[in-house]
Amino acid sequence: MAKKPNKLKARLPRGFADRSAEDIRATDEMIGKIRKVYEQYGFDPVETPAFEYTDCLGKFLPDTDRPNAGVFSVQDEDEQWMSLRYDLTAPLARHVSENINEIQLPYRTYRAGWVFRNEKPGPGRFRQFMQFDADTVGAPGVQADAEMCMMMADTMEALGIPRGDYVIRVNNRKVLDGVLAAIGLGGEEHDERRLTVLRALDKFDKFGIEGVKLLLGDGRKDDSGDFTPGAKLSAEQVELVLSIFELQIEDTDGDRISVQNASKKIEELDESGLYHDGLSQLSDLNRLVRASGYAENRIKIDPSVVRGLEYYTGTVFEAELLFDVTNEKGDVVQFGSVGGGGRYDGLVKRFTGRDVPATGFSMGVSRLMTALKNLGKLGTADVVAPVLVTVMDGDVAALGRYQKMVQDLRAAGIRAEMYQGNWKKFGNQLKYADRRNCPVAIIQGSDEREAGEIQVKDLIEGKRLSEEITDNITWRESRPAQVTVKEAELIETVRSILNGQADDRQRASEA
Amino acid sequence: MAKKPNKLKARLPRGFADRSAEDIRATDEMIGKIRKVYEQYGFDPVETPAFEYTDCLGKFLPDTDRPNAGVFSVQDEDEQWMSLRYDLTAPLARHVSENINEIQLPYRTYRAGWVFRNEKPGPGRFRQFMQFDADTVGAPGVQADAEMCMMMADTMEALGIPRGDYVIRVNNRKVLDGVLAAIGLGGEEHDERRLTVLRALDKFDKFGIEGVKLLLGDGRKDDSGDFTPGAKLSAEQVELVLSIFELQIEDTDGDRISVQNASKKIEELDESGLYHDGLSQLSDLNRLVRASGYAENRIKIDPSVVRGLEYYTGTVFEAELLFDVTNEKGDVVQFGSVGGGGRYDGLVKRFTGRDVPATGFSMGVSRLMTALKNLGKLGTADVVAPVLVTVMDGDVAALGRYQKMVQDLRAAGIRAEMYQGNWKKFGNQLKYADRRNCPVAIIQGSDEREAGEIQVKDLIEGKRLSEEITDNITWRESRPAQVTVKEAELIETVRSILNGQADDRQRASEA
Repeated sequence: MAKKPNKLKARLPRGFADRSAEDIRATDEMIGKIRKVYEQYGFDPVETPAFEYTDCLGKFLPDTDRPNAGVFSVQDEDEQWMSLRYDLTAPLARHVSENINEIQLPYRTYRAGWVFRNEKPGPGRFRQFMQFDADTVGAPGVQADAEMCMMMADTMEALGIPRGDYVIRVNNRKVLDGVLAAIGLGGEEHDERRLTVLRALDKFDKFGIEGVKLLLGDGRKDDSGDFTPGAKLSAEQVELVLSIFELQIEDTDGDRISVQNASKKIEELDESGLYHDGLSQLSDLNRLVRASGYAENRIKIDPSVVRGLEYYTGTVFEAELLFDVTNEKGDVVQFGSVGGGGRYDGLVKRFTGRDVPATGFSMGVSRLMTALKNLGKLGTADVVAPVLVTVMDGDVAALGRYQKMVQDLRAAGIRAEMYQGNWKKFGNQLKYADRRNCPVAIIQGSDEREAGEIQVKDLIEGKRLSEEITDNITWRESRPAQVTVKEAELIETVRSILNGQADDRQRASEA
Repeated sequence: MAKKPNKLKARLPRGFADRSAEDIRATDEMIGKIRKVYEQYGFDPVETPAFEYTDCLGKFLPDTDRPNAGVFSVQDEDEQWMSLRYDLTAPLARHVSENINEIQLPYRTYRAGWVFRNEKPGPGRFRQFMQFDADTVGAPGVQADAEMCMMMADTMEALGIPRGDYVIRVNNRKVLDGVLAAIGLGGEEHDERRLTVLRALDKFDKFGIEGVKLLLGDGRKDDSGDFTPGAKLSAEQVELVLSIFELQIEDTDGDRISVQNASKKIEELDESGLYHDGLSQLSDLNRLVRASGYAENRIKIDPSVVRGLEYYTGTVFEAELLFDVTNEKGDVVQFGSVGGGGRYDGLVKRFTGRDVPATGFSMGVSRLMTALKNLGKLGTADVVAPVLVTVMDGDVAALGRYQKMVQDLRAAGIRAEMYQGNWKKFGNQLKYADRRNCPVAIIQGSDEREAGEIQVKDLIEGKRLSEEITDNITWRESRPAQVTVKEAELIETVRSILNGQADDRQRASEA
């Protein structure tokens, strides 16, 4: 029993973090607001567990002994590999496929949940983070994509982001796929190379047009000397691909949008018709959102939007925040993307063999929180610390009396606690109340006890008076910082002090 | 592109499950009620991630190549083993230890979170489930344990479980440890055997006194022939241990509780004084909760409570539901435990080397949900399905008009959606509305469009009328099941129908 303890180091694996009370409360509040919008739109929640069979996740196949490239995987007793989900889309496709006969299509659902990436962690890059997704499964038309864009826009405003500070940028993967087919990169045999092109285009914001050119061509060396191999396109192919950045789309009186400067060459080479289809769907989506009153300052067609994931098959979109922030290098930049998504008609088919079109999007919860923090839109969740009943005497009978006061306060709806540390040093109790920001302290020593009385200290007022603030907070007369009342007046007295403090906060926030 | 898809089977690994909308809403509501009680008691949330270094979890050491005995583990790039948390207590001890200089002790916190067990799944036994924990760290006195018991009792009532249908049963591990020391099982060298004894005692509810006797002695063979080795106690030792079940505790006028029938022999052998200390702490706890008005029908001292976990060092307690349910074998039994906890003064010390006493408890969220379902106390969360705007014409201009109606309804706070499936079969749209339980459908064909009108169908009233219910629902005149109104009257008309339906539901629930 007396063995010297073998002291363990308390630490977390890299890329994982604890969440503070403030963070949890802010996240809950934010998620509550998002959920309200989704519910209004007719979406219902559904959730999947953390683990899936690795093959169901699709992207990562168990072809090595321990398939830990990007995901966390373990082998089950029956030798099958299972992995922690790395997003919420692949598990939803599995869920829908597994229950396809019971689910009423079209199926609108949403979910918030933790996802896991077994990647190299870095500043702001975690291996566990929360996503909040919404999807409509079994909806083939571009009107379902339009609804997603409007829901994203409404969500931004429900979170308090002013119109003009965000925009939903929309493109259609078919436009890109059409260009790629036109330059001879259609067909399965070019899957890998097509993905390289998409990833290169997706780097436009990061590396600019010159960087993208390198990534489309022979490759690009970064500042640290690391070399990223390119897609090895010819100069002519690169030019055709980059023409999408010059597409000008105009909304002329609700008519089909016209495409200016679009490379004639691509139109000629568009044998598959994909390029044309993509532009036509963009035009339809544009008209649909405009008909509902969503102008270009909320939802904007932008053919430079890529989104790297291979599985998108039509509309793709991104919610972008436009206000400036200072990044870690000290540069002033736009805040950028907080989420996005698109149409993925192939994911459910992998399981069912049946065409089950789907569209959806995902938001990064902690990135969105950072954005709201920057905008000062995080409800400083007005949680008042508990009233502290101090302990002047530690025998069981006295503790019983203090505890009774606490239970009476709680039963009256007042957040309260008895001091649970070492009661003998009264200074520690006041220090605790101060650090914890307790609004009120209750004190009853033996003298008060005999007189059937208690002292009630207004700790906020006490602090104010002791700091002798005289200028801008002299708009009211001070309350007494301490009163002595009969035991029976405990709740009434505490409630009156708390109400006074709440009034002060209200006035201060209006001042 | 036309390759025949290699069809994957959509399935989940055993022991994992998806959560339905109903389940998610009920859980959220339940957790909200519990959280409110904990906040009232002065507790603040704090959360830890899913992974911890395996050595920090303590119980399971990476002594094999893949330490998957009971937990899910993966090896990080730096060869260190990490595991998914199997409870929320070990991670909290790590969190407090890591931040011991910043945290203001005593520290009251709570958290709900998923935990993972790599065990054989069975009916109702999952490998991922949610726990809801509350802990006070840095509180040495039995008054902190008393607070936990009162908080558990208040939680049961906040969830709607009537007084008398639950009880918090309390014991003290020192009583048991004292008995074990008295029969010669004290000291580290008996750790394993002591645990076997505790686990045997914990089986009292399941196997009765005879089963426990076998497990304390040579071992027990179950119905399937599986043999569980026993603690190999002598007959005399077994008798002394079982005497704890006969302890009678009386609360005499707030005085120290008296122990009747306690084995004189144990008192004689109690050299460590543990047995005496345990009884004395039980007596104090008893007085503290009584002083706050919690009678024996809410919090009851019961020396037969064990709780299997080795790390408890003092008070242990359990929330037990007393109402009858029929189990899977068809027997009528008491519902039993929905959570419990106790004092664990050693967990933080493993990291800090410093005495940091702590007490807390954990509730099984899905077990508690099952209990509330049994009691009919699950808020049948009154979520109304969306109003359906049907699609009679699929060109973009028409879709734009339908979508506009939907957005107007949503902006007015009315849950609404446009039909997103194949619009050409109108019957499918009505079937969808029916299956989804939509309250109202909006229809606008080309005739109505030309007249600037819409049809608004009350689907609930329509169903009622078509079912020709005449008896007990004839307390009001029927509403028209369908009206044709001007486009501008859309929102007003829908709102009035929804209000009428809400009134009906209200009247029906009162009838």
